[in-house]
Amino acid sequence: MTTERTPVAIVGAGPAGLLLSHLLAAAGIESIVVDSRSRSEIEQTIRAGILEQGTVEVLDAIPGSRARTVGQRHDGIELHFAGESHRVDFAELLGRSVWLYPQHEVLKDLIAARLDAGQDLRFGVTIDRLEDTDSNTPRLVGTDAEGATVNIVADFVVGADGSRSVVRPTITGPSSNNYFREYPFAWFGILCEAPPSSDELIYSNSPNGFALISQRSDAVQRMYFQCDPQTDVNAMSEAQLWDTLQARVPGTTLKEGPIFQRDVLRFRSFVAHELRRGRTALVGDAAHTVPPTGAKGMNLAVADVLLLNQALQALLLRGDERPLDAYAETALKRIWKAQHFSWWMTNMLHLSPEASDFDRLRQLGELRSVVDSEAGQRYLAEAYTGWPLATSL
Amino acid sequence: MTTERTPVAIVGAGPAGLLLSHLLAAAGIESIVVDSRSRSEIEQTIRAGILEQGTVEVLDAIPGSRARTVGQRHDGIELHFAGESHRVDFAELLGRSVWLYPQHEVLKDLIAARLDAGQDLRFGVTIDRLEDTDSNTPRLVGTDAEGATVNIVADFVVGADGSRSVVRPTITGPSSNNYFREYPFAWFGILCEAPPSSDELIYSNSPNGFALISQRSDAVQRMYFQCDPQTDVNAMSEAQLWDTLQARVPGTTLKEGPIFQRDVLRFRSFVAHELRRGRTALVGDAAHTVPPTGAKGMNLAVADVLLLNQALQALLLRGDERPLDAYAETALKRIWKAQHFSWWMTNMLHLSPEASDFDRLRQLGELRSVVDSEAGQRYLAEAYTGWPLATSL
Repeated sequence: MTTERTPVAIVGAGPAGLLLSHLLAAAGIESIVVDSRSRSEIEQTIRAGILEQGTVEVLDAIPGSRARTVGQRHDGIELHFAGESHRVDFAELLGRSVWLYPQHEVLKDLIAARLDAGQDLRFGVTIDRLEDTDSNTPRLVGTDAEGATVNIVADFVVGADGSRSVVRPTITGPSSNNYFREYPFAWFGILCEAPPSSDELIYSNSPNGFALISQRSDAVQRMYFQCDPQTDVNAMSEAQLWDTLQARVPGTTLKEGPIFQRDVLRFRSFVAHELRRGRTALVGDAAHTVPPTGAKGMNLAVADVLLLNQALQALLLRGDERPLDAYAETALKRIWKAQHFSWWMTNMLHLSPEASDFDRLRQLGELRSVVDSEAGQRYLAEAYTGWPLATSL
Repeated sequence: MTTERTPVAIVGAGPAGLLLSHLLAAAGIESIVVDSRSRSEIEQTIRAGILEQGTVEVLDAIPGSRARTVGQRHDGIELHFAGESHRVDFAELLGRSVWLYPQHEVLKDLIAARLDAGQDLRFGVTIDRLEDTDSNTPRLVGTDAEGATVNIVADFVVGADGSRSVVRPTITGPSSNNYFREYPFAWFGILCEAPPSSDELIYSNSPNGFALISQRSDAVQRMYFQCDPQTDVNAMSEAQLWDTLQARVPGTTLKEGPIFQRDVLRFRSFVAHELRRGRTALVGDAAHTVPPTGAKGMNLAVADVLLLNQALQALLLRGDERPLDAYAETALKRIWKAQHFSWWMTNMLHLSPEASDFDRLRQLGELRSVVDSEAGQRYLAEAYTGWPLATSL
């Protein structure tokens, strides 16, 4: 069994792991990135993506990134409620924007850039366990795509392996230590062949429940409506799906077309109890998941990675452990703010099955409070477009 | 049985009813104000009071009002959480302030002004029923302090008779029509002889639950802590009360002194299903109650009264019913915003008995989001100091 040696071993070739590998490489720090999935599986799992302005600025530094050029800049969102439509104008309020650019497109860019630079990125490698995690040279043991044993010793191991992280238990101990919240609803998502029904995202609070009208391209659209988590994805006809969506955005006429994908997205809020132990740390979905309302998932992963990148540069280039010691506390401040924002957008916009008439009218009072106030709109817009990214720990 | 005739009959000599009588009188419209309580009962029921700037401006027009002169101007509040203290500076954010001036002092001013002007204000008058409410001349039938029958026919009847309003059922029908929300906690309030522990109100979110450090005068202070609604007001010693309070404001040393009043305030959110029917309308607590966090109760009553005053002037001086027809819808927009604000402040600051660790950390993430953002602070400050008061319907 050959033991390989690397400064940083990154488990997971999602946005967090790949971006970290690029930032480390730019600082002259080599890494090995492994993922249990194949390249095509990663690149073809369709995922939504709203990129904060700061996320796009970070991606701009990756050779070949198309986020700013192929992604669509959105200068605001529409909030619909009580039969009214209100635009929150990010550009006017803050001089900031977001970019609509799907996560799987971000991944294609990050994978191509890494392979083009001849850097180490391995698909089909399953990590079975971590060893020596109390030492300064933790070890990954796994199996590659051909069934051969993989054995990597690193100065640092990063768990960027998503919500079912295999690295996480090493850091947090039993899963019961972690923080989580379930929601009594899910999103029914469709992809359809149709022109856009709106230039920007429409977040609609309706008496029938929430709907989100989103876009993918000039010819393909993504839309969602709140549903019961137990909904059978095939129970409704296309006509019923369009009726359901249309009834929830009464002020907008949806442009219909063939629906070629349907899925039910479960909602879950999760934060790991610890983000770092010794020479091991978590980033992205391995550390936290948010419900999709407000689109914070990938952006929060980028914020983690910027912090951990600085911490690993300090550790590996200068032997300075202090930024690493500050990583979890600093990252958690943003993580809990983002958890709040995601909870807030979710609760303000969705109809809870337990909601009383009081709750429903209170919710409309909240939406009215936000849109009536420039400060309220700005507070929402700051969170949506992204709080400032830390430049040092 | 003598029938009396008045343009406006107002049931309830609280802030809403008395203020309305003054505003109508200033426009040359006479009214009769009746209350089942005695004058001393009204003036000696100690109630807190934070007056929005707009409320103080309205009271300035009442001869002898001491709100601005005897009341204490507060230019901000303190938010305490996670061992940190953050000031929300209303003056700097908005150029606005609030005034600490107890409700019973407002009532003394309003009663004295009405009696000094020789206007009709009757204590000890119990209204037993409303008659002819579908006509243009509704009638109040009741009993005065001496047991004689009272019989008042008016062009308009106003229910300003608080949360147990006798006028309300005429307008809303069965109470099950109304909107309400219970909370799983209450406030334990004390009055004590001590110097102020803080210049401004401290709203503290602590791991043990909420506390509010308020003031009454240089020598008397008002403080509250979150408790179970079933708490026996006499179960704790003075030393235990001080320990409980002190543990919830860890960054501030409370100045202790003899506790001479204790009470348990139940929390309830309530909005009447209808605010007006024909020639009858509700204002203030008869129309809505809010939990005390955020101090919206009396201010919301003033906002109702300004609207109804305009509507009654239009009706009675110009025969124009349109402002009256708009009264409920316009008033309800502010009422539901205020319900939201009161719910928001309550939920952001209190520890729910059902809260998970996730919920608790999400709450701290929310508080941090607000204080980290000038827009967040401004959004809170706008609501706390009071949204603009309607000047026309």
